[in-house]
Amino acid sequence: QVRMMLNELPAADVAHFLESTPPKERNILWRLINTEREGQVLQFLDDEIRNEYAANMEPAELAAATRHLEVDDQADILGDLPDKIVKEVLASMRVQDRHRVEHALSYPEDTAGGLMNTDLVTVRPLVTIEVVLRYLRMKGELPVATDCIYVVDSEDKFIGSVSLSTLITSQPDETVEQVLEKDIHPIPVDQPDDEVARVFERRDLISAPVIGKDGELLGRITIDDVVDVIIEDADHSLMSMAGLDENDDTFAPVVTSAKRRAVWLGINLITVMVAASVIGVFEETIAAVTALAILQPIVPSMGGIAGTQTLTLVIRGMSVGHISDNNFRWLMMKELGVSVLNGLLWSLVVGMSVFLWFHFVQHSEHATYLGITIAGAMVINLIAGATFGAILPVMMTKMDIDPALSGGVVLTTVTDMVGFFAFLGLATVFFL
Amino acid sequence: QVRMMLNELPAADVAHFLESTPPKERNILWRLINTEREGQVLQFLDDEIRNEYAANMEPAELAAATRHLEVDDQADILGDLPDKIVKEVLASMRVQDRHRVEHALSYPEDTAGGLMNTDLVTVRPLVTIEVVLRYLRMKGELPVATDCIYVVDSEDKFIGSVSLSTLITSQPDETVEQVLEKDIHPIPVDQPDDEVARVFERRDLISAPVIGKDGELLGRITIDDVVDVIIEDADHSLMSMAGLDENDDTFAPVVTSAKRRAVWLGINLITVMVAASVIGVFEETIAAVTALAILQPIVPSMGGIAGTQTLTLVIRGMSVGHISDNNFRWLMMKELGVSVLNGLLWSLVVGMSVFLWFHFVQHSEHATYLGITIAGAMVINLIAGATFGAILPVMMTKMDIDPALSGGVVLTTVTDMVGFFAFLGLATVFFL
Ligand SMILES: [Mg+2]
Ligand SMILES: [Mg+2]
Ligand SMILES: [Mg+2]
Ligand SMILES: [Mg+2]
Ligand SMILES: [Mg+2]
Ligand SMILES: [Mg+2]
Ligand SMILES: [Mg+2]
Ligand SMILES: [Mg+2]
Ligand SMILES: [Mg+2]
Ligand SMILES: [Mg+2]
Ligand SMILES: [Mg+2]
Ligand SMILES: [Mg+2]
Ligand SMILES: [Mg+2]
Repeated sequence: QVRMMLNELPAADVAHFLESTPPKERNILWRLINTEREGQVLQFLDDEIRNEYAANMEPAELAAATRHLEVDDQADILGDLPDKIVKEVLASMRVQDRHRVEHALSYPEDTAGGLMNTDLVTVRPLVTIEVVLRYLRMKGELPVATDCIYVVDSEDKFIGSVSLSTLITSQPDETVEQVLEKDIHPIPVDQPDDEVARVFERRDLISAPVIGKDGELLGRITIDDVVDVIIEDADHSLMSMAGLDENDDTFAPVVTSAKRRAVWLGINLITVMVAASVIGVFEETIAAVTALAILQPIVPSMGGIAGTQTLTLVIRGMSVGHISDNNFRWLMMKELGVSVLNGLLWSLVVGMSVFLWFHFVQHSEHATYLGITIAGAMVINLIAGATFGAILPVMMTKMDIDPALSGGVVLTTVTDMVGFFAFLGLATVFFL
Repeated sequence: QVRMMLNELPAADVAHFLESTPPKERNILWRLINTEREGQVLQFLDDEIRNEYAANMEPAELAAATRHLEVDDQADILGDLPDKIVKEVLASMRVQDRHRVEHALSYPEDTAGGLMNTDLVTVRPLVTIEVVLRYLRMKGELPVATDCIYVVDSEDKFIGSVSLSTLITSQPDETVEQVLEKDIHPIPVDQPDDEVARVFERRDLISAPVIGKDGELLGRITIDDVVDVIIEDADHSLMSMAGLDENDDTFAPVVTSAKRRAVWLGINLITVMVAASVIGVFEETIAAVTALAILQPIVPSMGGIAGTQTLTLVIRGMSVGHISDNNFRWLMMKELGVSVLNGLLWSLVVGMSVFLWFHFVQHSEHATYLGITIAGAMVINLIAGATFGAILPVMMTKMDIDPALSGGVVLTTVTDMVGFFAFLGLATVFFL
């Protein structure tokens, strides 16, 4: 029954089902899938799981299983495997297939070249619509997700495209040249995949032609693969903020996951120990006024929160393309303004609360200075948070570090240190 | 010059340019845009900016500016405006347009009904391809992003679809019935938009028919609007983790932004004060051993990090659909296992470091117990982090609270409190 289900459900659903299953059961399910379907399913699996299964198949079997996939998907599957296996798989393909896949593998995975497909329909500008329609009818079947055909010159250079709608609604005796859409911006083969995604999004494209350096038509990118890029990038932003990798198997074995997470915890341990060492500088002050130890977490925490808001805003603004050199100064001044206003508001609230509590409930002689200390430190740390939150992503991007991955860690280390230093430093001035 | 640029660039680029410009300059730019283009640009603007400009236009002007938009986009623009304005705008539309827009507005924005378009081409099953092609050629133009035409019966019930590729490659004397694709899963009009997006992603769809309760064809959804849903959802997850709203204008005035951020800072202030009150319970212990104040941030921080990793993993797993009741227990046990392993590893490291530092550098008599205290508290708090990180999103989802928005705050409050309590509590046992 399960076998029937696995072999009748759409391959994408089977992949999703496998991804949602713990490893042991997953392996059993995988063995129930017919070999002819394995390629289809592999195509939709998350990287980690796919690589495991693909690497464990016989090269000839893998070649057979992926034969009917689009060439970009074949390249995706092979691209992550060890070179040795790739060679063996290529060796067991038919010559023509091998050349196509080798060609697809020659482009980096995260560029237009890595996304594109080479099966497209091209025509010359001077033929009539009638001839084109007869030619297409003879072909019998168009490549998957074909929404237009491309017009090229005798040197295979891209001239324009004609949508299937236009083909259908034009008069048969018109020539391709008369109806062709010239206002198409072809995508350079080396354009990064996230830029390709932005072009598709803004222009509401379904497919786009890809050209080489001399304007020669190399292939086409279809929206389904662009959607995958968009989802992967979104997953990456979200997961990397917590030090996780979007390609990892959610149901990986305990030891595998523990090893991966250990690194992130270790980094955090170092940063928090550095921040704690700031407290060590003020040990005497704390010994004199223990209440400081109680209030100590408040200022770093508020600075971290305010800073993270600015950081997130700037990271997203940069990735969407809203933030540039022209408006960065404006934005930075704005974030500072926001932090000053909120710093004043909340330092007033927290300063008064602390005063009232220590004066009326604890009957402490230090109430006034405790209130002033925490209020002053709060303003300082919120300003530090906004400043670093705005500058960090710009600096990191220039140094080619992913701010989504490490921006948060660096930021909170800074706001922790500034927070402890401002709070305990001010206290030392007042109390020692 | 600027005016020319604004009126010649694609509308999506103009919208992006406006979004990237601080408010004052933006208002000047907006006034330079021709009225006929305003509708086009409005369509692509982020919600906050769009609502501001749309609400400030004369109703008749807004009606005229949006006349040539697809009906789903018209509904999007009007849907966010005050009822009074909407009525006035509808009143100044032509009767037929008004009915179409009113109908579109009757569906919730975040369902299939809110995404769909009503301009589609339908045919009956028994006509021949030749007749269909002649009919389409007579129409002269097909609706935007048409990749297939729909086949309905005499009661307008959806039967199947015929792609333009099929129309072009089939023999003219075949009937629609002979070539129609029946294996299409039409989308129910009340399906939530994120589910629609998942269907499109998995099936690699370009468009999909939308049907009502009795199977009657109501409209079609196209991939460009689904891409917008995917991007909005991703933005939402990312921004709400920092307490931000993805629809807010990045370049909003200082006071507007300060007010919005104040709430999030206030919530954090309350939670951190609650956590700090836990420290207050152990004031005597800290007075006895000031070194505790220095080590105090370490355990809560590590618990927060470990917990956030589990939380992020579970939130994402739930939104992707990987996590269900069937595998949740397995995943929860796994996360516990990961935390136990990492708890043991890092408590050993931190325990030894603390012992060595306080023994050999500070020559403190408390070195041994400080090491044991922090190691023990670390294991406890990492386990607490994993447990709450796994349970919180499930609980919150059941209570209809968005875990991406408030999960992090609640989690770190818990790990802070558990962290302080475990660390200072153990210390009290040893030192008092
Ligand atoms: Mg997947
Ligand atoms: Mg890959
Ligand atoms: Mg990528
Ligand atoms: Mg590829
Ligand atoms: Mg779009
Ligand atoms: Mg493809
Ligand atoms: Mg694909
Ligand atoms: Mg936009
Ligand atoms: Mg809206
Ligand atoms: Mg809508
Ligand atoms: Mg897909
Ligand atoms: Mg639309
Ligand atoms: Mg749209």
